Amino acid sequence: MNKPVDQSEFKTPEVTTGPLPASTKTYTAPKADPSLRVPHRSIALHPSANEPPVPVYDTSGPYSDPSVTIDVEKGLERHRTAWVKERGGVEEYKGRDVKPEDNGGATGRFLAREFPIKNAPLRGIVDENGNGEMVTQYEFAKAGIITKEMIYVAERENLGRQEMLDGAEEKVAAGESFGADIPAFVTPEFVREEIARGRAVIPSNINHAELEPQIIGRNFLVKINANIGNSAVASSVEEEVEKMVWATRWGADNVMDLSTGRNIHNTREWIIRNSPVPIGTVPIYQALEKVNGVAEDLTWEIYRDTLIEQCEQGVDYFTIHAGVRLAYIHLTANRVCGIVSRGGSIMAKWMLARHEESFLYTKFPEICDIMRRYDVTFSLGDGLRPGAVADANDRAQFAELETLGELTKIAWEKGCQVMIEGPGHVPMHKIKVNMEKQLRECGEAPFYTLGPLTTDIAPGYDHITSGIGAAMIGWFGTAMLCYVTPKEHLGLPDRDDVKVGVITYKLAAHAADLAKGHPAAQIRDDALSRARFEFRWEDQFNLALDPETARDFHDQTLPKDAHKTAHFCSMCGPKFCSMKITQDVRDYADGLSENEKAALYPDEAQEGMAEMSKKFEELGGKLYLSEDGTEREAID
Amino acid sequence: MNKPVDQSEFKTPEVTTGPLPASTKTYTAPKADPSLRVPHRSIALHPSANEPPVPVYDTSGPYSDPSVTIDVEKGLERHRTAWVKERGGVEEYKGRDVKPEDNGGATGRFLAREFPIKNAPLRGIVDENGNGEMVTQYEFAKAGIITKEMIYVAERENLGRQEMLDGAEEKVAAGESFGADIPAFVTPEFVREEIARGRAVIPSNINHAELEPQIIGRNFLVKINANIGNSAVASSVEEEVEKMVWATRWGADNVMDLSTGRNIHNTREWIIRNSPVPIGTVPIYQALEKVNGVAEDLTWEIYRDTLIEQCEQGVDYFTIHAGVRLAYIHLTANRVCGIVSRGGSIMAKWMLARHEESFLYTKFPEICDIMRRYDVTFSLGDGLRPGAVADANDRAQFAELETLGELTKIAWEKGCQVMIEGPGHVPMHKIKVNMEKQLRECGEAPFYTLGPLTTDIAPGYDHITSGIGAAMIGWFGTAMLCYVTPKEHLGLPDRDDVKVGVITYKLAAHAADLAKGHPAAQIRDDALSRARFEFRWEDQFNLALDPETARDFHDQTLPKDAHKTAHFCSMCGPKFCSMKITQDVRDYADGLSENEKAALYPDEAQEGMAEMSKKFEELGGKLYLSEDGTEREAID
Repeated sequence: MNKPVDQSEFKTPEVTTGPLPASTKTYTAPKADPSLRVPHRSIALHPSANEPPVPVYDTSGPYSDPSVTIDVEKGLERHRTAWVKERGGVEEYKGRDVKPEDNGGATGRFLAREFPIKNAPLRGIVDENGNGEMVTQYEFAKAGIITKEMIYVAERENLGRQEMLDGAEEKVAAGESFGADIPAFVTPEFVREEIARGRAVIPSNINHAELEPQIIGRNFLVKINANIGNSAVASSVEEEVEKMVWATRWGADNVMDLSTGRNIHNTREWIIRNSPVPIGTVPIYQALEKVNGVAEDLTWEIYRDTLIEQCEQGVDYFTIHAGVRLAYIHLTANRVCGIVSRGGSIMAKWMLARHEESFLYTKFPEICDIMRRYDVTFSLGDGLRPGAVADANDRAQFAELETLGELTKIAWEKGCQVMIEGPGHVPMHKIKVNMEKQLRECGEAPFYTLGPLTTDIAPGYDHITSGIGAAMIGWFGTAMLCYVTPKEHLGLPDRDDVKVGVITYKLAAHAADLAKGHPAAQIRDDALSRARFEFRWEDQFNLALDPETARDFHDQTLPKDAHKTAHFCSMCGPKFCSMKITQDVRDYADGLSENEKAALYPDEAQEGMAEMSKKFEELGGKLYLSEDGTEREAID
Repeated sequence: MNKPVDQSEFKTPEVTTGPLPASTKTYTAPKADPSLRVPHRSIALHPSANEPPVPVYDTSGPYSDPSVTIDVEKGLERHRTAWVKERGGVEEYKGRDVKPEDNGGATGRFLAREFPIKNAPLRGIVDENGNGEMVTQYEFAKAGIITKEMIYVAERENLGRQEMLDGAEEKVAAGESFGADIPAFVTPEFVREEIARGRAVIPSNINHAELEPQIIGRNFLVKINANIGNSAVASSVEEEVEKMVWATRWGADNVMDLSTGRNIHNTREWIIRNSPVPIGTVPIYQALEKVNGVAEDLTWEIYRDTLIEQCEQGVDYFTIHAGVRLAYIHLTANRVCGIVSRGGSIMAKWMLARHEESFLYTKFPEICDIMRRYDVTFSLGDGLRPGAVADANDRAQFAELETLGELTKIAWEKGCQVMIEGPGHVPMHKIKVNMEKQLRECGEAPFYTLGPLTTDIAPGYDHITSGIGAAMIGWFGTAMLCYVTPKEHLGLPDRDDVKVGVITYKLAAHAADLAKGHPAAQIRDDALSRARFEFRWEDQFNLALDPETARDFHDQTLPKDAHKTAHFCSMCGPKFCSMKITQDVRDYADGLSENEKAALYPDEAQEGMAEMSKKFEELGGKLYLSEDGTEREAID
C-alpha cells in the first residue's frame, strides 16, 4: 500500500521561468541602505492608456528575471549570508551528518539524490553559561537595531516608492481595520517597532541565505502561504521543487513543505536551496517517520535532533503543536470531527499512550533555545482546530489558544519570533471572535489561519468555502492566510490546484487589504477597471492576478486578435455593450456647450446651473437632483 | 460582425435528466393542503452510517424524477393553472400575436422554431373603472388569504418536515441575523405575513403554470439566481434551454434569461414552458432589439408592448431600471467605470438624447398596472450600480437606491410584489452599509444583489471575488444572490461555467444560512462531516453540493474502488491520517476502565474524577483541565 517511489530516474527539477505577461522585474535601492536590491514587478500598459506601469508586489524571486541564469543544481544566490555575518554573533560549524532515517531509511533506487552542494551551517554563539549573542530579528528589534531585513521589507511593502502616496492617510482612514495601526508609509523604524512589539515577524532562518525577506503582521499587506509536499502515496522531488517555484510565481509569500514518507530530508534541501520565499515545516512529521510512524515511540531526543537538522537546513518557521495538552484531549471526545490536525492527533496519541504531558509543552523553553540560535520563527500550531463547523469555537479550540498565548510570552522572553495558527472550519458568525480572542490572548502576535472554511458541504470547492472566511478574517486582522486548494479533503493538489489555491488566496488577501484601507492596494484595481472601461483587453489581462486564465477565457468565445481591441465582448455583443454606451454618453456630454455642460455637471460650473435648469424645464419639465439629494419631485 | 445564427438545424433541446447520486425525489403533502405535492431531494447514506437519509432543498424540478417522462416539445405539466383559476379573478383571452420584431426580425433559416404548443394567456379581470380583482400574492396576503403558493413554499422551506426540529429555537438564537426574524418553523401564515409586509415575494406569473413556487425574503433560506441567455455573438436556443435545466439541477432557485440579439421571443418560450423555477428578464433588452439597437428610438409604446408580450408568456419577474433618473446621470461622469448596467446605460443614453426623464420612471404607475394583472414581480434594477470598487457607495448609486425606495411604495400601493437589485463591485468594508440602507429605504423589500465583487483584480476568478461578497451580504440580509461565473467580464459562460457559478453561489448562500442561524442549515454540514470523519467516502461525495467533482478529484489520486472505503486519502497516506489517529484515540478511550474513562471524560462520570486525577498525577504529574478552564499549571 505504502509503496516507495523509485527515485533512480531522478532528474534535475525543471522549473518555470520567465516574466509574466507585460511584466518587468525591477529592483529598487532603499534610501536607508542603497546596497540592497528589493524586487518588484512592473506591469506595462498600452501606450493609449497614457499611464505609468503599475508596480505590484513580487514573490517570484529570480525565476521571473530573464537576466538571471537559473541553475537548480546550484540553488539561488546566497546573498543573505553576508548580512548575517556582518552583524556578527554567529559561528559557522560542521553541522549534523545526514542519517539514513532523515530520509525515512530510503536506500538504493528509492533514495532521492542529495542536493549537490553542502553549505556549512551558521548558528548563534552561546557562551558556557548559556548566554547567547543576538541572532533573531526580534532580539535586534528589541535592542533598537534596524537590520537589513527590516529595511528590505519596508521597501517591499511600499512597492519601491520613496515617498508617501498622495492621499494615503485618507485612504487608511477610510478603511476599517478593526484597531490595527496601518501606516500611510512604511519606514524601517516602523518595521522595527512592530517586530519589537511582537506584532510582526520576518521568518528568516540565518541558514536560508537565498531568501528575499518579507514581513507578516496585521499592519502590513496580508500574506498567503501555499502548502506543498510529497506524501507516502504520491509525488516526487522534482514535482515538489517545481510546485514551490510555481506557487511563488503566482503570489505565494510563503511555502510550507508538508512532506511525509521517505526522502523528506533530501526533498527539503532541494526546495530550500532554490526558494526565494520562507519555507515552513511541521517537524513532528519527519520525527514520526524516524520512528516508523508509531506515535508512541516518539521521544524528545528524536524530535530535538529533527529540529536541529531542519534549523541547519534553513527552514524559516516551524509549526509546533505545543498547545495540545493532555488535559485538553477529552474536550474533543464529543466533537463531530475530533482532532483533524495531523500534528495534534499524533501528540494526542502519544500523550494518551504514555499518560504523559506533551514534550512539545514540557520542553518548550528548550525548543525556544534551539530555534533562537537560527532565528527560526514559531508558528504555534492549532492542533485542536475545528474540522467541522459543528466543532467551531468550542472549549478544546479555545483552551489551546489560551495556552498558545502563554507560550507566546515565553518564546518572546527567549528572544524568538512568533506566529499563531488558527482555524479551520468556522461559520461566518463565529469568525470575528476568533480574531479578537487571538489578539487578546497572544498579545497581537501575527495570526496565521487556514481558511477558515465557512461550510462543510462543498468538497471540491473548498478553496472557495475557505476563501470567503479567509478574506473576512484577513480583514479582521489575520496577517497570513494559509491557502486551501480545490483538492482539500479529497486528494493531493497538483500543479493546477496549487495555482487555483494561490490565486484564490491572493484575491482574498487583496480584498482584505482593500477593506483595511491599505494606502496602495486600490492602485491595481483602479488601473484594471480603467483598462476594462476603455476596452484595453490586453491591459486587463496583464493586470489580472492570473493573466493566462483571463486571456484564455476571453479567447474561448472571441479568439481573434482583432477582438482584443474590439469595444465589446461576447457577453453582450457589439450593440448592447453598456461600457460602450457609457462612453457614448460621455462623448455626448463632451460635445455639449458650456451652458449645457454646466447643467449636466453642476459641480464643474455652478454658474450655468440656473439658466440650464430653466432651459431643461422647457425641454422636459424635470429638475436635476442637486448633489445633496434635496431637489426631487414626485412622479408625474 | 453581428452575424445571425443559422437556426435551420434546430433540434429538440436535449436536457440533462436523472437523479443526482444516491438521491431520490420525494414529495410531501402539506397539512394545510394535502393535495399539493412539494418536492425535496433525499440523499441516502451507507448502511454503516445508521442514519436516516438527508433531506435537501431541491430546485431541479421533474428532470431529476425518473418517474416523470420529460418531453421538451410539450413542456412541463401546467399544474398551477388550476390553482390560479380556482381562486378566480382571472380571465383567459386570446393574447397578443407574435410579431416579426419580437424575434428581432429573424426570418427563414435564421428564425428559431416556435414552441409547438400555444396556450391562451390569463390575466386579472379589471372593470371599466380600472378596478381589478385580486391577482398577486401580495394582494392575497394583504387580504389575509393564504394561497396554495404560500402553503407550498412553507412546506418547501421546512424541507418537508411537519414539526419543528428539536433545538431549532436555540439554533436560530445562536446565529446572528442582524435584525431579521427567522422562525424556527415556517408556517403558511408566517409566509403570508412576510409577503403582506412586503418582506418576501413569490415570483409566480399566473401564466407560468409549470412553476414550482419558492419564496425570496430575508427570513427564508437565501436563494440564488443564475443568468443565461443567448447574445448576438454566440449560442443557440437548445443551449439555453439546457443551461436552464442544468443550472436548476445544481441548485439555481431562479433563472434570468438575459438574451439579446435575435430569436428572443422563441428562445424564451422554450425556456419558460420547460422551467420549474421562476424566470426573470430585463424587458428593455428586447425592446431595444425592436428598434434595431438605437436607444434613442425607444418609446413607451414599444416598451409597453414588450411588457405585455412577456407577461403573457409567463415571465415571473422583470428587472426595471426605473430608478435611473435624468438627474442622476451626471453623478456618474467622474466614475472609473461609469454606468455598467446595460439597462441603465440604455436609458441614460435615451434620456440624454431626448433631454427627457426616463419613461420607466414617468410611466411607473402604468407599468405597475400591467404587471399586477399577471403577478409579475418587480426586480427594481440598479442601473447605476458601481462597476469598480472605486465607484462603490457613491452618490449616483445611493441616489438611485433612494428612488427605488420611493418606487417600492408605489408598487405596493398598486398591489405588486417587489424586489430590489443591488451592487456590483464593493470592497468588504462598504458592503454592510449597502444592506442597511436598502432595508431602510425600501421597507425591507427583498434585496437581490450581484455579488458584490470585493476586488477588481481577478478576472477569471470573479465567481470567487463575488462569492466572498455574496456570502457576506447574504448573511447581512440579502434574500437572493445573483451568481457570477468565472467568465464574468471576459466571455459568455458555457455549461461548465454555469455549474461553477451555481455551486459557488449555493455554497455562499448556505454559508449565509448557517451564519444567520437557519434552524436546519447545519444538518447537511454535520452529516457530511460525520461521513468524512468515518471515512464514508461515498457519503461524503453524495452529500456534497457537487458530487461529481468531489468524486472526480478524489479519484484523480486514488482511483481504485477499494480506496472508497480506505481509512486514508492521498493527502497524507495511510500512516499519517489525523482522522484515523483520532479514531484510534477514541478506540483507546473506549478500552479504558470506568475509572480511567471518568478522568478522560469528566462530564460523563464526575464521580471517578478524584481518584483518576490522583492516579494521573502519579503517572505524569499533570492535572487535567476542568471544563471551565480554571485548573491549569505552569510549564515545568
